[in-house]
Amino acid sequence: MSKEELAKRLVETGAVRFGKFKLTSGKESDYYVDIKQAYTDPAILRLIAKELATRMGEGGDCVAGMELGAIPLVVALSLETGLPFLMVRKGERAHGTGKLIEGKVPVGGRVVIVEDVATTGGSLVKTVERLRAVGVTVERALVVVDRQEGGEEAAKKASVVLVPVLTRDDLLRLAPGKT
Amino acid sequence: MSKEELAKRLVETGAVRFGKFKLTSGKESDYYVDIKQAYTDPAILRLIAKELATRMGEGGDCVAGMELGAIPLVVALSLETGLPFLMVRKGERAHGTGKLIEGKVPVGGRVVIVEDVATTGGSLVKTVERLRAVGVTVERALVVVDRQEGGEEAAKKASVVLVPVLTRDDLLRLAPGKT
Repeated sequence: MSKEELAKRLVETGAVRFGKFKLTSGKESDYYVDIKQAYTDPAILRLIAKELATRMGEGGDCVAGMELGAIPLVVALSLETGLPFLMVRKGERAHGTGKLIEGKVPVGGRVVIVEDVATTGGSLVKTVERLRAVGVTVERALVVVDRQEGGEEAAKKASVVLVPVLTRDDLLRLAPGKT
Repeated sequence: MSKEELAKRLVETGAVRFGKFKLTSGKESDYYVDIKQAYTDPAILRLIAKELATRMGEGGDCVAGMELGAIPLVVALSLETGLPFLMVRKGERAHGTGKLIEGKVPVGGRVVIVEDVATTGGSLVKTVERLRAVGVTVERALVVVDRQEGGEEAAKKASVVLVPVLTRDDLLRLAPGKT
């Protein structure tokens, strides 16, 4: 499956919709993306994992992502590549075990992170910081959709290369009336 | 891999430990289980998924589990069986989209749920309730380890059959001095 095919599947499943949408940030957008609506179909999840696997670059010692949206991608990529995975928790975990990261941290090793959607890059940078705090190197972030709203720049500022499968431009080419 | 082999792998990876432990509930226990420490290795995750897949019974329209611990199991089981998956959120989601369930709910359909560890069955019953509230049937719950502390009874009371891969008894047979 090419990335064009994947883009079409995202539209078919309703994971990408065109129209007027208000984002959580309050900003308006002419499209909406929720990869979870597509990747809960294991055939699509497997295809996304294959696309991500081809973008691993020099690879790493494990793959990681933040709960909840990135976890199915991280798990599928782990199964696809054979690399172990880490789950980064979102909250502060003042209660309970206090663990911010689940899985075996390869201290001194390299971790490739994964996100479903990058917008401004805020959660991406938080993921990078949490991982670096436990002693791993993070230089590469894979993302299914880059909305091109500052994520690449935010990643770069954190010395991370953002590698998208699809960008805003790829998706908008599929908008009704654009094809 | 037999379930005996899986039990040994859980001990080897430190996912199961013997000694004196204080549980979150305040109760004391002579062993500790955290399946996350084992299933972040994709070889072990795949083996667990195969064990779960053989316990699907009459099957269903999809598989589901609650964040965060069950999600990798649900994703791996979905990839193994080809059935789509749902992710049940833990919180109340007063903010944001308010979605308690991620994925396409097969209204009127049957859902098999998955958990990493069942203790008293509290989170299992919460998962069942959240799914039934959106119009699906839940009759079967698969669990990697049943600690045999009331989970089976709690499930039964909720008209759900709890099907474990391993029980407390299976694990304690591996405790030092017991073999």
